[in-house]
Amino acid sequence: MPFPDPASLSKTELETGSRLAPKFDANGLIVVMTVHADTGEALMVAYMNAEALQRTLATGEAHYWSRSRQELWHKGATSGQVQKLVELRVDCDQDAILLRVMPQGDGGCCHVGYRSCFYRSASTDGTLTTIDTKL
Amino acid sequence: MPFPDPASLSKTELETGSRLAPKFDANGLIVVMTVHADTGEALMVAYMNAEALQRTLATGEAHYWSRSRQELWHKGATSGQVQKLVELRVDCDQDAILLRVMPQGDGGCCHVGYRSCFYRSASTDGTLTTIDTKL
Repeated sequence: MPFPDPASLSKTELETGSRLAPKFDANGLIVVMTVHADTGEALMVAYMNAEALQRTLATGEAHYWSRSRQELWHKGATSGQVQKLVELRVDCDQDAILLRVMPQGDGGCCHVGYRSCFYRSASTDGTLTTIDTKL
Repeated sequence: MPFPDPASLSKTELETGSRLAPKFDANGLIVVMTVHADTGEALMVAYMNAEALQRTLATGEAHYWSRSRQELWHKGATSGQVQKLVELRVDCDQDAILLRVMPQGDGGCCHVGYRSCFYRSASTDGTLTTIDTKL
């Protein structure tokens, strides 16, 4: 499934149309926020290229583009933390994706060992406090 | 409050330390996912530069960097959709921020008129369906 070029769409078509026309950036990537489908908990932020987005829709499992490894990343392929896709949404100007997923395996998503990558809260002076316990 | 240079920290310090050391990208920006503090609903994805992050922490209201307007953006300054900060979190490698906010004004966040920018859901063939009603 090739995606339409968002530059070929009007602002109205982009914002209120019925075609997924993701705006990939200069590196061919779009940002993705991933949340737990049941609890809504924010799990992680990652990136997709067109292939990762297509594979996510086709397989029903989250695929990202690993910027550090510069390769397609089937989340959980090695860790077991596969993310079953429940719903994929796009934002108003189609430059961000929201994934609602059911984490598999141990239910985590973060390589540090927490359920969510957002396990630290900042106070106003920039001090971080860990607010979760490891799985 | 100047932020420490994340490049000066070890991976362990970055991931498990107690200092907010945001990794700004080549454009001086860090991605932010913003969610409703009460419901957890995913509201929007935006970007902050160091000044926006500092102002958010100092004022308790979300500030972003508008990439389209290339200016500091006090969310809600014109729309009334101010976002009161409840909690700011950082992810494992400190290249993404999570804001938990209480939307003010009409309770919305999206310029198109929805409560969340993620008002469309994609089917596997790339068809979008609007899943929310306007405020």
